[in-house]
Amino acid sequence: MASFEESGRPAADHDALTAWRAALDAERVASDAATLARYACSTAASPTMPLAVLRPRSTEEVSAVVRIAARHRLALYAISTGKNWGYGDACAPSDGQVIVDLSGMNRILEVSAALAYVVLEPGVTQQQLSRYLIEHDIPLWMDCTGAGPDTSLVGNILERGFGHSPYGNRFQNVAGMQVVMADGAVLDTGFGHFPNAQATRVFPYGVGPVLDGLFTQSNLGIVTRLGLWLMPQTACINHFLCRVERHEQIAPVVDALRPLRLDGTLRSIIHIGNDLRVISGGRVYPRARAGGQLPLPDALRREMRAEAGVGAWTVSGALYGSAAQVALARRALRRALKPTGAPPQFLDERKLALAGLAARWLASWPVGRRLGAKVRLGRSLFDMNRGIPNGRFLAGAYWRRQAGLPADFPAHANPALDNCGMLWVSPIVPMRGDELLRLHALAEPIFQRHGFDLFVTFSMINERALGGVITVAYDKEDAGEAARAGVCYRQLFDAIMAAGYIPYRVGLQSMADLNGGNDVYWQVVGKIKAALDPDRMLAPGRYDGGRRGDPAGDA
Amino acid sequence: MASFEESGRPAADHDALTAWRAALDAERVASDAATLARYACSTAASPTMPLAVLRPRSTEEVSAVVRIAARHRLALYAISTGKNWGYGDACAPSDGQVIVDLSGMNRILEVSAALAYVVLEPGVTQQQLSRYLIEHDIPLWMDCTGAGPDTSLVGNILERGFGHSPYGNRFQNVAGMQVVMADGAVLDTGFGHFPNAQATRVFPYGVGPVLDGLFTQSNLGIVTRLGLWLMPQTACINHFLCRVERHEQIAPVVDALRPLRLDGTLRSIIHIGNDLRVISGGRVYPRARAGGQLPLPDALRREMRAEAGVGAWTVSGALYGSAAQVALARRALRRALKPTGAPPQFLDERKLALAGLAARWLASWPVGRRLGAKVRLGRSLFDMNRGIPNGRFLAGAYWRRQAGLPADFPAHANPALDNCGMLWVSPIVPMRGDELLRLHALAEPIFQRHGFDLFVTFSMINERALGGVITVAYDKEDAGEAARAGVCYRQLFDAIMAAGYIPYRVGLQSMADLNGGNDVYWQVVGKIKAALDPDRMLAPGRYDGGRRGDPAGDA
Repeated sequence: MASFEESGRPAADHDALTAWRAALDAERVASDAATLARYACSTAASPTMPLAVLRPRSTEEVSAVVRIAARHRLALYAISTGKNWGYGDACAPSDGQVIVDLSGMNRILEVSAALAYVVLEPGVTQQQLSRYLIEHDIPLWMDCTGAGPDTSLVGNILERGFGHSPYGNRFQNVAGMQVVMADGAVLDTGFGHFPNAQATRVFPYGVGPVLDGLFTQSNLGIVTRLGLWLMPQTACINHFLCRVERHEQIAPVVDALRPLRLDGTLRSIIHIGNDLRVISGGRVYPRARAGGQLPLPDALRREMRAEAGVGAWTVSGALYGSAAQVALARRALRRALKPTGAPPQFLDERKLALAGLAARWLASWPVGRRLGAKVRLGRSLFDMNRGIPNGRFLAGAYWRRQAGLPADFPAHANPALDNCGMLWVSPIVPMRGDELLRLHALAEPIFQRHGFDLFVTFSMINERALGGVITVAYDKEDAGEAARAGVCYRQLFDAIMAAGYIPYRVGLQSMADLNGGNDVYWQVVGKIKAALDPDRMLAPGRYDGGRRGDPAGDA
Repeated sequence: MASFEESGRPAADHDALTAWRAALDAERVASDAATLARYACSTAASPTMPLAVLRPRSTEEVSAVVRIAARHRLALYAISTGKNWGYGDACAPSDGQVIVDLSGMNRILEVSAALAYVVLEPGVTQQQLSRYLIEHDIPLWMDCTGAGPDTSLVGNILERGFGHSPYGNRFQNVAGMQVVMADGAVLDTGFGHFPNAQATRVFPYGVGPVLDGLFTQSNLGIVTRLGLWLMPQTACINHFLCRVERHEQIAPVVDALRPLRLDGTLRSIIHIGNDLRVISGGRVYPRARAGGQLPLPDALRREMRAEAGVGAWTVSGALYGSAAQVALARRALRRALKPTGAPPQFLDERKLALAGLAARWLASWPVGRRLGAKVRLGRSLFDMNRGIPNGRFLAGAYWRRQAGLPADFPAHANPALDNCGMLWVSPIVPMRGDELLRLHALAEPIFQRHGFDLFVTFSMINERALGGVITVAYDKEDAGEAARAGVCYRQLFDAIMAAGYIPYRVGLQSMADLNGGNDVYWQVVGKIKAALDPDRMLAPGRYDGGRRGDPAGDA
């Protein structure tokens, strides 16, 4: 295996490595081919290759890493745990950047049960915080994403990801960041930079300009610590599901739910998934039954829909509160959905336990097995609602994978290491039924044309907007299919941009396509970048308005 | 009256004025002494004098104004309506800046009832939006501050002010800004800079770094347009009040209310005012009864407390929702407050109407007059809760004014023009009873020492923090008292900074005291300022980390 030193790279790189080894201990500075290849694993067809991987363990070490990089003019790309699947994984925008892997900084630094917050380092995973709260009997729930137990909370928040609970609009729950700047200085945002500050974790804005937004979806600093508000546990949760049989029927459902989301009856993120999104959660593409056809033939799709007992769309969400509050919300939801002909079904702990019992009784019959599967799904949803992560929601990434789901799925599921092909497109649309249909109608023919199955979820990520997540799942081992996936992705991306349904987040492959030119926003971002990181040392090409062909955007 | 031209100012200023007159029409460029003096009216003892006042009417005109200022190297200070009372009013941080008065940009540009937002220019006042919604029968409520009908919504939001309703954390409800930069370029934040963007007003973050925070409490650009989320009307509102007799009893009340604020039972900003805060709402300092003593003697304070029927502290807030939701919240509130011995009293429309009837019957008796006053207060609170502003909450500013409340108060109340003396100190404390008492204990002796009456409100501005607003009300016509007010303010400011209860907002007199030196936060702000406004042309000295004696902070 070729080591970094043997690979003929310039002396400057060698000197930087030597300096980093002195600063971090040698074993936390890697440049061997196997390590580099592991970090280059990606759900995208053309990952990038890092120059080296550094694993600092403290803010001070991150500062030291940055100062050495500045001296040697090497680009750094920080990752939290590097599980940004579908958006670039652990990869930098271009080859030859040095990965700064913060997964070893995984301390939970502070917890306040009374004021309902924690202070985290970037390496803290969903599983870790979830378990910590349970083991220490702290009556708070973490907001959880479907990305599985081993993903970083901070990493997701810095990408402005969203989860499932009333705290699912995660960026809104950040209270104070610590950030290492390109010159190695350590910035504390909010009140955190004042000596003896008492309110840093309870009031995020501080006094003076609010800087926190600058360090999300950006390359302006390396966040090493973050205050995060958590939700106090409620006495009661009900999960609810509702479905519509025909595609167009989802529009009035969206319009019926919007007032309840706006008035706070529905406090959590509501997810609206199409049939394939739900079906792909438990199985891979039925190659044999499809007779080699791609995409899924309509008749087979209808069959599978019936087998899975789902409609064209499934709405899934949770009600939180006291038993009486939840009962009121149930009533409001029933009333609102009545005219749509899509009544909600409610799931509570008692129903779930009874169904579990029934499934065990009937375990040897098909009906019992189907019930068992539903109980396991219900249990996972319930767990998610109260901040217990589950890898099963990653199944969609494996949809076209030749080898199917790993035997031990969902344990240790890692779509990048498992060589899954997946690209995500995440347009935001106003929360209106007609807008959902319009966006869907844009996407459908593009997927058809290129032979892909359109999975889509629309999430009510705040009170007024739907966050669409459209998956291009492809077989990474089939070069033709991978190429078609790239074209499908690209056409979809161009179509949503032209229609004005701009994504809330993009993968590396689209970073250089966010700036149409002469855009004052990107000019301002560029000026700030030049002021804070004049040598463009931090993550060049990441959300910086660089365009293909520009010196700043040749990613 | 000396005109600008006659005042012997340099030719560059004269040329700039000529250019502005050509760009804006002559009548919207003022430099006569009377106009300048009016803009220099302030609740502070040492206001600053502008060089001129410009009144652009559109974003394009603001751009033109900025470009001309850049050419002539003159500093601009933008105000919305200039009613930042207690924090500097319409004044710039230093003499000789040119006021850009945006009150003529007062269009309501867009309203969506379905998605519950408006798009406003900076000159839109609380009264104007409130009336617009009522007249157009739009089922949305505006969040309202106590600063009265004629104040700007945008101006308050850019200072990160807070109101009364569930939308009282106002900055959290901003969706897309338009900002004129120092080079005259026009920035649209969020998705607003993408052609054809559909979701600008429903999803504030856009894609890439979030810049909006940079334009609050800053001098980095001039905001000319802002999307603002409004609250859908609810079927029911109850107002509630509760009081404690003794000072220390407020601590367990805070701790009892916190879980309800955290769990969403209390969705709105709850205000906790001390006795003087409530008493000063209806009358001025009783000089005769106090026999010339300052501050208010304890015995008289107790007497007035009894007359006004208030305790040491009064908690005031509102419950919103369906009738059933409000009933549940009432029950939860009663249960939570039971152990504190401070039961809530609820006020609904029916009770208020009955009391109004009774007050009219008994109008010729003292009891009827007292009841009448309470009904009018109740009506004002109810109005505030649903976004109808009222000037009566400005009364505190007049507390030490020799001439008392104006005859037509609260119509046209304007503490700056009425020569009221008022300085505000606004520390944030974690939402805990012991923290409230600790801060109060810091402030009390300082006020005593200098002969001032400690008015204070603590507002539950989010789920975890109390925003304190401490008023130094003084007689501006008494030079000795004005000087003592300055010292009292200063000692209080130093005390809260040392204790780590940093203010969420400061007046002009404290801008240069926010940077203790070697503070990375202010270094970063300084770098961004230098990148976006290299000539320091926009509002120099405003929240820019400049320190007294520094070239950048000699305000």
